[in-house]
Amino acid sequence: MPASLPGRFRFAGVTCGIKASGKSDLALIAGDGPLVAAGVYTRNQVVAAPVLLCRSRTPSAAVRAVVVNSGNANACTGQQGMRDAEAMAQQVADGLGCAAADVLVMSTGVIGQPLPMEKIRPGIDQAVQRLAGDRWSFNDAATAILTTDAGRKTIVREIEIDKASYRVAAMAKGAGMIAPNMATMLAVIATDAPLAPDDAATMLSGIAKVSFNRASVDGHTSTNDSLVLLASGTAAPLAGAARQMLQEALSDVCIELAKQLVADGEGATHVIEIRVRGATNHDDADQIARVVGESLLVKTAITGGDPNWGRIVSAAGYAGPPIEPERTSLAILDTPIYRDAVPLAFDAAALSRRMKAAELVTLELVVGVGPGSAVRWSSDLTVDYVQFNSEYTT
Amino acid sequence: MPASLPGRFRFAGVTCGIKASGKSDLALIAGDGPLVAAGVYTRNQVVAAPVLLCRSRTPSAAVRAVVVNSGNANACTGQQGMRDAEAMAQQVADGLGCAAADVLVMSTGVIGQPLPMEKIRPGIDQAVQRLAGDRWSFNDAATAILTTDAGRKTIVREIEIDKASYRVAAMAKGAGMIAPNMATMLAVIATDAPLAPDDAATMLSGIAKVSFNRASVDGHTSTNDSLVLLASGTAAPLAGAARQMLQEALSDVCIELAKQLVADGEGATHVIEIRVRGATNHDDADQIARVVGESLLVKTAITGGDPNWGRIVSAAGYAGPPIEPERTSLAILDTPIYRDAVPLAFDAAALSRRMKAAELVTLELVVGVGPGSAVRWSSDLTVDYVQFNSEYTT
Repeated sequence: MPASLPGRFRFAGVTCGIKASGKSDLALIAGDGPLVAAGVYTRNQVVAAPVLLCRSRTPSAAVRAVVVNSGNANACTGQQGMRDAEAMAQQVADGLGCAAADVLVMSTGVIGQPLPMEKIRPGIDQAVQRLAGDRWSFNDAATAILTTDAGRKTIVREIEIDKASYRVAAMAKGAGMIAPNMATMLAVIATDAPLAPDDAATMLSGIAKVSFNRASVDGHTSTNDSLVLLASGTAAPLAGAARQMLQEALSDVCIELAKQLVADGEGATHVIEIRVRGATNHDDADQIARVVGESLLVKTAITGGDPNWGRIVSAAGYAGPPIEPERTSLAILDTPIYRDAVPLAFDAAALSRRMKAAELVTLELVVGVGPGSAVRWSSDLTVDYVQFNSEYTT
Repeated sequence: MPASLPGRFRFAGVTCGIKASGKSDLALIAGDGPLVAAGVYTRNQVVAAPVLLCRSRTPSAAVRAVVVNSGNANACTGQQGMRDAEAMAQQVADGLGCAAADVLVMSTGVIGQPLPMEKIRPGIDQAVQRLAGDRWSFNDAATAILTTDAGRKTIVREIEIDKASYRVAAMAKGAGMIAPNMATMLAVIATDAPLAPDDAATMLSGIAKVSFNRASVDGHTSTNDSLVLLASGTAAPLAGAARQMLQEALSDVCIELAKQLVADGEGATHVIEIRVRGATNHDDADQIARVVGESLLVKTAITGGDPNWGRIVSAAGYAGPPIEPERTSLAILDTPIYRDAVPLAFDAAALSRRMKAAELVTLELVVGVGPGSAVRWSSDLTVDYVQFNSEYTT
């Protein structure tokens, strides 16, 4: 039996015609009553109107709904963009009978074009009508937030904490303009665990750091990245060890979603998992893993199943943090390649075959004898990525 | 009449069989007597053996020759790599009758494979025999240092300073693993202007900063980057305004070479010139230009002739240095697109046609009202780059 959805949530996904493709493009996630909500948002200095709106409304103990449109980012749209985002919240509030200030708004898609409000208005009305707590409605919502994604990204799971049982239903979108800095892309995590707003906010920062912020498709941090946690539990908020267990369970959910994003990266054929050890500290290890994972030469080597390890070691060398070149070692898919600065003999043809066949290629890079370690996920770079992104708007 | 080569220099380029393709792969540049020499080298922490050797031997007033092999980087090759680099210098010194310590060594090509010394030894003997001061020999040398380059990159020019006339002959190589941090790639600048060693070193740092360090193909700083300036003039060293004029003339030469590198970037179809103004200071402007020029989404938009300007503005927003989003403006090929955070109406189809036809696409980005400005050059990202780099070693 599949896990059930968290209690006191309803979902809808509809087609209002923002996308020329005719695919669904407006999602609504609503609580039966007030929800505890926390958000983590893009660190890009150029920020879309809906992000500004959400930032000012979270954390909160009284959010009623999140409305999401895809196909248009409502970014770089001037004052009109903010008026449109506020109008979306107002219309949802009118439909649900709550205050506009208790509605969050997310947008994703092309930057710099005004929202087609004449299409969005009837879409919101339709979504309010269709709100339901079943799995089909959840899937409709998770589909309506997608843009260039090949498929829906959802996780529905039950969590046991201290003999109590909670449910979590999470959805995310994102396949391009994905880079590690704050919550990358759009994601909504709904749970019926009880949480206090400030606890939810602190928890969500920790979750973002170990999950979405470690994922990269193309190193480009978007203007719209938003990760929102909604909690509908009405009991006394979780605290202490129980709260920590919830954070770990939600982190696992977000790590899986982050890997789904990377696996569905535009044109991607492999996920690259970069594990760095021996750095001066964890932040340094993370920076080295980021630079290795974003190197075009590393990405294309993985695309071709090419154990061209000089690209990996040299990327670590220009990443910035200090490394110990004489204590640098590398293994690809557990095959040792380079140890303490000396190349090792290995069967390149056999390793290449394994790399080509693997969905996830692990790079284990030791850069010294320090205590710092980190793991990151990156997608490879293919001809399809370049073709797709050479032809996106015109 | 083409400009003549600088006096007291000889050149040779030969084929010794390092490259499977059978193309020439060993160059020798020698002075008739001692040369003033300065070098700027990669900032990668993983450094090839020949770079370590050159670093320890420059600046100098007594360099006699530079030997360069292509097809093998002699990087990540352990202690054997340093012994091989020293053996190359020793053999050149034996051939020319000078001290081994007065010979510089450069290598470029695949990382992590031992140098085939049994091929290099007869190649060096042959190069010593062929040394000559004519233009054909110079071109042979400039060809023998290439790897994935589509063509030779040379500039030969006469410089008038205070009624005296000097000559400069410069060569560079590089089409991939090109990123802005210290002298990127291999380049040798030979001049018969008189210079003191310390002046040459200071001058060369300034030259690298405004030329090669502003160029990027793929953002990947190599392990072998080396830029060497050789001066054969025997008169009293230039000083004061005359030295400044020489620096400017050599900077112009290196800027042109840097643009040649980017234009010949692996798979490149356009050079992107990123001009940033209004930043807090020049360093901030430079960092913003770097991040815009390295964004895969910006690169692929230029590849497709797509005025998808949200990618450019959003890249400035995540570059790191503070910007003023409300004072941000953009023009592409002199067409205003976005002014003070408001999208402008423009003929996207006409601009797209001009972008597709242009060899150099200018992006003029204003990020505020500060005094900081910078210019950088980057290549676009094409299917050919990805195909080529997915298939490089195996």
